[in-house]
Amino acid sequence: MEQIISAKNERVKKWAKLKTKKGRTTFNQYILESWHLVSEAINAKQLVDVILTTDKQYELHQEDIDTFSGEVIEISEDVAKTLGSTSTPQGIFGIVNLESNLEVANIDYSGAWLLLDQIQDPGNIGTMVRTADAAGFNGVVFGTGTSSQFNPKVLRSMQGSQFHVNIFEGDLNDWISKFKDNHVPVYGTELNPKAVGYLDVNPTENVALIMGNEGNGMQDELLDQTDKNIYIPIKGRAESLNVAIAAGILMFHLNK
Amino acid sequence: MEQIISAKNERVKKWAKLKTKKGRTTFNQYILESWHLVSEAINAKQLVDVILTTDKQYELHQEDIDTFSGEVIEISEDVAKTLGSTSTPQGIFGIVNLESNLEVANIDYSGAWLLLDQIQDPGNIGTMVRTADAAGFNGVVFGTGTSSQFNPKVLRSMQGSQFHVNIFEGDLNDWISKFKDNHVPVYGTELNPKAVGYLDVNPTENVALIMGNEGNGMQDELLDQTDKNIYIPIKGRAESLNVAIAAGILMFHLNK
Repeated sequence: MEQIISAKNERVKKWAKLKTKKGRTTFNQYILESWHLVSEAINAKQLVDVILTTDKQYELHQEDIDTFSGEVIEISEDVAKTLGSTSTPQGIFGIVNLESNLEVANIDYSGAWLLLDQIQDPGNIGTMVRTADAAGFNGVVFGTGTSSQFNPKVLRSMQGSQFHVNIFEGDLNDWISKFKDNHVPVYGTELNPKAVGYLDVNPTENVALIMGNEGNGMQDELLDQTDKNIYIPIKGRAESLNVAIAAGILMFHLNK
Repeated sequence: MEQIISAKNERVKKWAKLKTKKGRTTFNQYILESWHLVSEAINAKQLVDVILTTDKQYELHQEDIDTFSGEVIEISEDVAKTLGSTSTPQGIFGIVNLESNLEVANIDYSGAWLLLDQIQDPGNIGTMVRTADAAGFNGVVFGTGTSSQFNPKVLRSMQGSQFHVNIFEGDLNDWISKFKDNHVPVYGTELNPKAVGYLDVNPTENVALIMGNEGNGMQDELLDQTDKNIYIPIKGRAESLNVAIAAGILMFHLNK
């Protein structure tokens, strides 16, 4: 097995760049951290190009890694630190090729969908994808201005749910009109005088639920296109709910 | 107004220690960051001893700060960086005296309560307190082994809800027996064969809901004492829900 020990190795420098948007666009790849995510990616037929593993991680997962058909490279703890996104990286990574997966023509718009409008916090985003998976949602659309699905923190907090639900990126205006064409009701979430309490909204098989930016809420432009606008009544003195918590309550209510 | 410019000042060194458990125990104080939290603490009659503010923050909140009866000290950006817990601290802090607030004899055990069993992640903990507030819960009990309510990250993510609901720390065994003495049903949350789906559990005015550790769940010892054990059915292929999301769904279900 090839070994890379120096964090100054040219390939390591390239892989480290995959943690940034610019790097991902340049090389058309992203980097996935932890055996859990790498193995889920392989099982989900993602185009895993290379597995990078420390000696320690290789020993733990040797049986599975040996069945991998692509390149496997042993890396030092130093290289793992350079590539990782936490202070104590696990020491195993996958370099995954990005597909031009925008076969928007073949999308099945039925079922429940979560639309993210300019959501910023990677932890919130990842948790919402994980929750959408658990709630039996069909897909999640990352609207323009929402942090990337390939951001290392987003990848980590999705915990593999990115391989269980459909994930798309795009202009939510286009997505809303597609849902409308397919008779899927579109629900906004903004606390305004026209909003309806969520307990007065019936669970429904098909729905597109939009969650807005943590500080500013949904864009007015999108709000104008929704069929309904729902909110969660606050009983105590909290000013608001965390966006991922609100999404969780609404998704489990709508899809129960 | 007194000014402290050097991060090496003895008082600054002391205040920085309040970010750790040891420092808080030694000095019987904690440090609160951001004007939002400091002003909420003052309004909630917490024993705010000193306000530390950069010139910039003082200008923004001068009118309110001038009505504060305690000591106000101007600090440099350097000092703010030493005391802060984020990479870009806002620049305003409160040093708050800890009260020996364990008047457990006078607690009203009615209403809804959230009990945290060995929860580790400060963001999860803070978000759960904020959500408990929004769901109209009466209080939150930090069980032994749960991160401290005065941990800077916990303080930040509670977003002031610590001043809206009752917060206690203690042994959950004692708390469970108190709830039982007061005829408050105690619900555990653990996925096991005896667990009941939450949609089959009726909302109830009085309840003590226990959430368990992120990785290991609830302690068996506590689980043995619950009246009921509830879970959230997972529809997709996610292995689990984030503990704060699960708590949000359950709290809004039980207290609706």
